[in-house]
Amino acid sequence: MSYDSLLIKDSDRVLIVTEKRKRYLVQVREGKKFHCSEGFIDTTQLIGRPFGCRVTSNTGSRWVVLNPTLADRVMFFPRTTQVVYPKDIGYIIVSSGVGPGCRVLEGGTGTGVLTSILAYLVRPYGKVYSYDVKDEYLEAASLRLRQLGLDKYVELKHGDIGVDVAETDLDAAIIDVPEPWKAVERCYSCLKPSGVWVSVSPTVEQVVQTFEALDEVGFSDTSCVELLLRNIRVKRGMTRPEFIMRGHTTFIVSARKTVKD
Amino acid sequence: MSYDSLLIKDSDRVLIVTEKRKRYLVQVREGKKFHCSEGFIDTTQLIGRPFGCRVTSNTGSRWVVLNPTLADRVMFFPRTTQVVYPKDIGYIIVSSGVGPGCRVLEGGTGTGVLTSILAYLVRPYGKVYSYDVKDEYLEAASLRLRQLGLDKYVELKHGDIGVDVAETDLDAAIIDVPEPWKAVERCYSCLKPSGVWVSVSPTVEQVVQTFEALDEVGFSDTSCVELLLRNIRVKRGMTRPEFIMRGHTTFIVSARKTVKD
Amino acid sequence: MSYDSLLIKDSDRVLIVTEKRKRYLVQVREGKKFHCSEGFIDTTQLIGRPFGCRVTSNTGSRWVVLNPTLADRVMFFPRTTQVVYPKDIGYIIVSSGVGPGCRVLEGGTGTGVLTSILAYLVRPYGKVYSYDVKDEYLEAASLRLRQLGLDKYVELKHGDIGVDVAETDLDAAIIDVPEPWKAVERCYSCLKPSGVWVSVSPTVEQVVQTFEALDEVGFSDTSCVELLLRNIRVKRGMTRPEFIMRGHTTFIVSARKTVKD
Amino acid sequence: MSYDSLLIKDSDRVLIVTEKRKRYLVQVREGKKFHCSEGFIDTTQLIGRPFGCRVTSNTGSRWVVLNPTLADRVMFFPRTTQVVYPKDIGYIIVSSGVGPGCRVLEGGTGTGVLTSILAYLVRPYGKVYSYDVKDEYLEAASLRLRQLGLDKYVELKHGDIGVDVAETDLDAAIIDVPEPWKAVERCYSCLKPSGVWVSVSPTVEQVVQTFEALDEVGFSDTSCVELLLRNIRVKRGMTRPEFIMRGHTTFIVSARKTVKD
Repeated sequence: MSYDSLLIKDSDRVLIVTEKRKRYLVQVREGKKFHCSEGFIDTTQLIGRPFGCRVTSNTGSRWVVLNPTLADRVMFFPRTTQVVYPKDIGYIIVSSGVGPGCRVLEGGTGTGVLTSILAYLVRPYGKVYSYDVKDEYLEAASLRLRQLGLDKYVELKHGDIGVDVAETDLDAAIIDVPEPWKAVERCYSCLKPSGVWVSVSPTVEQVVQTFEALDEVGFSDTSCVELLLRNIRVKRGMTRPEFIMRGHTTFIVSARKTVKD
Repeated sequence: MSYDSLLIKDSDRVLIVTEKRKRYLVQVREGKKFHCSEGFIDTTQLIGRPFGCRVTSNTGSRWVVLNPTLADRVMFFPRTTQVVYPKDIGYIIVSSGVGPGCRVLEGGTGTGVLTSILAYLVRPYGKVYSYDVKDEYLEAASLRLRQLGLDKYVELKHGDIGVDVAETDLDAAIIDVPEPWKAVERCYSCLKPSGVWVSVSPTVEQVVQTFEALDEVGFSDTSCVELLLRNIRVKRGMTRPEFIMRGHTTFIVSARKTVKD
Repeated sequence: MSYDSLLIKDSDRVLIVTEKRKRYLVQVREGKKFHCSEGFIDTTQLIGRPFGCRVTSNTGSRWVVLNPTLADRVMFFPRTTQVVYPKDIGYIIVSSGVGPGCRVLEGGTGTGVLTSILAYLVRPYGKVYSYDVKDEYLEAASLRLRQLGLDKYVELKHGDIGVDVAETDLDAAIIDVPEPWKAVERCYSCLKPSGVWVSVSPTVEQVVQTFEALDEVGFSDTSCVELLLRNIRVKRGMTRPEFIMRGHTTFIVSARKTVKD
Repeated sequence: MSYDSLLIKDSDRVLIVTEKRKRYLVQVREGKKFHCSEGFIDTTQLIGRPFGCRVTSNTGSRWVVLNPTLADRVMFFPRTTQVVYPKDIGYIIVSSGVGPGCRVLEGGTGTGVLTSILAYLVRPYGKVYSYDVKDEYLEAASLRLRQLGLDKYVELKHGDIGVDVAETDLDAAIIDVPEPWKAVERCYSCLKPSGVWVSVSPTVEQVVQTFEALDEVGFSDTSCVELLLRNIRVKRGMTRPEFIMRGHTTFIVSARKTVKD
């Protein structure tokens, strides 16, 4: 990455963090103003300045202008479906072993949050095969992946993850559909021996049903975890956990394909 | 990855999961027996069989033999220092944005758990620069990285993270040392604008001191989180969170480099 | 308690729980209507009906009309100060050993939430000595205690808990002031040997400073805990922890008075 | 309580907290030594000294000798069944509204931990009616209640909580049996209108089944919570949550009796 890429250009997306710690993903454009509850700036002034610079709004509020990480960007995808949170994405990545060169099945595509992160990590030689039954989700995800420059690492496919998957010898299957147990048998066929199943479901009953299907079809080492994230307010003399907290996002089920030989 | 790589070979390391869900990382060798509290097997019998196969110990206990993921393998590194847990590693990865091609600073190397995961993820064109003040840690980490085939993605360097780091324009700095605040100034110089700082510390006072140093030197968007992992026992009619739980591992501090222009 | 007391009378306070699980403390009065976002009822119709009865609002929403427990009632006290939550109150009661006949010091009185619960529990022969430096808090608490019929179990006193407390041989001191460490020495004198200190503070630094004062003055067996409460949505096929959760309320410090003999 | 009661007498039970924070409930006796991993003391020396005194073991370890609270004492009851933890007891007390004068149903008696706390709180005019199907539990609980001087506030009864309960107009029913749903109908009849049901169950499926029974029989305002207790190690410069934590104890279900009139 050259130094030039660290200067903000016209049409770049930047992450603005305000004095009150509000976060906005903003596309810079000649002549475009960005407004929020803490005032406005003219984004023209950002062109040619480095990522990481500081600006002051018309009301005197001090903001920083950052180069968004991928995690920053996906958090601004339109929330047409329930999204997977970064804390859970991190755990999925580590437990599935997804990394450069992996071939990964994803179902469903949904908003494309997880698709984008997986695509980013399997570069440059791996591939994500992402299925969804809704065309509008696939089209929206396609657009976002192109914006992120990640489209060539993903095959978006219209189909039912429990029926239509054609790939084989995959390293991992990451499943985020309402009835993951219906995908277990098909995913078993697609995975290579010892391959990893990871599914996310918000309710206990979904998890129980998924466990039973995994056991029946021939997965093993099945486990279920839940992650609680606490934000800590750090300020000398006033340090404490934040009062506001997300009480639950999802349960994460993981398992490994076993084989009869 | 060819199909052959899915057959277990002499000297391969396998992950054995027993009927009672105990986990062992075992090196397969002609003529070698593996013993645990649930009996023994002769590992010779595993050679030529596929990963994911099932075996029965001499006492009738049923085990599965898996191809260990990287996360599986690092959990068996000798614990000479406090290790970073998978739940925290996942969050570090997502919040730092580390992926293929990234150039990452790590300090200190410690047991090499995080070094290995970072090396795995920056492949094939990125690099991890990992510093430690103890030669014995660097030597042990070097050996383990070679065993994992990850050594070419890491430069292990003897030195103090707060003083000796020479690299510049790095994407992220991942800091796990007792006094992270002493590394803040040096890391600021090493990171590219908008680059990411992530540090882990078990105590509140370390976090407060780190926050103050980050603020003073010119980092912004600083935050601190803590992750609680609950294991869920899933069994129809008997589903509940597990009674045993880790109460605390570490706080995770992240921040972004800002610049004056 | 006679059966008559189970029929709702004019001017009784009732707890109304709506179909959407909103909770309201309502005083019944001849001719008075109660309105909320789910419609209204005329409270006249409640007079003479039993607690626990069901009513239907003008919009067809189905509500239940309960006899509020003390915990229900205190949750509706005006929140002029940060209140102590039921989960924390329960832990304070059990760890302090407060029960019938106990003589308890409280500081400060604040909104009187904890004062009311303590008064209820020390009946009929015990006493709560509750101090506050603000007259308006004492007056408001006095009114509420009379409404609850608990005033004769409490002596409300204007004064600084760290200076003015005159009682001796108390069983427990329950401290909810911004600087509990300033009350430690005075409370030591007021407690009987082996008596219990319990204080609540939201920040880590308050807890550290309190521990140091307790140790210096002659308390022992000092501990600090934090309670996280998760609400569970229970519905067959859809059971999961609630998405909304309080991330932090307070730390609870407890200790025991030791003596030199 | 007179001052004399604050001097330790022969045959008193004391709570010894050692330098390493181990806790022991010890009966003082002329000529009896108490041994633990941190050395021994002769308990004779404690007679006539005040509760809260400090002693030194033969190995130089410094201990404190406290007057055990009721919560301290019940934690040393033999654990023949799964006990209810103080954090959960506290929440049960507050949500059930149990206090002086209340008439409370308990089922089952089990080890008598909760029975003892309830008995302590309903004094001097209330009563706990505690049922169990096992005679040996009732006998052991009877002995412990006498030791604590609480036996006159409890009627221990042999019987099935779902069938045999004869009392009526009770304020609350506290249920800790494996199949609480079988007790719902009987408890409905025993409670006065608007009376409180509280049950504890470790698994999700028990909770779901209990909710359905409560709804069917005529309870309302039903809720389910879970409490997580974190111990905090407080030491300036080294403050953090403890590494060891109980991951789960029980879910707490509460509900209110509604009536048709």
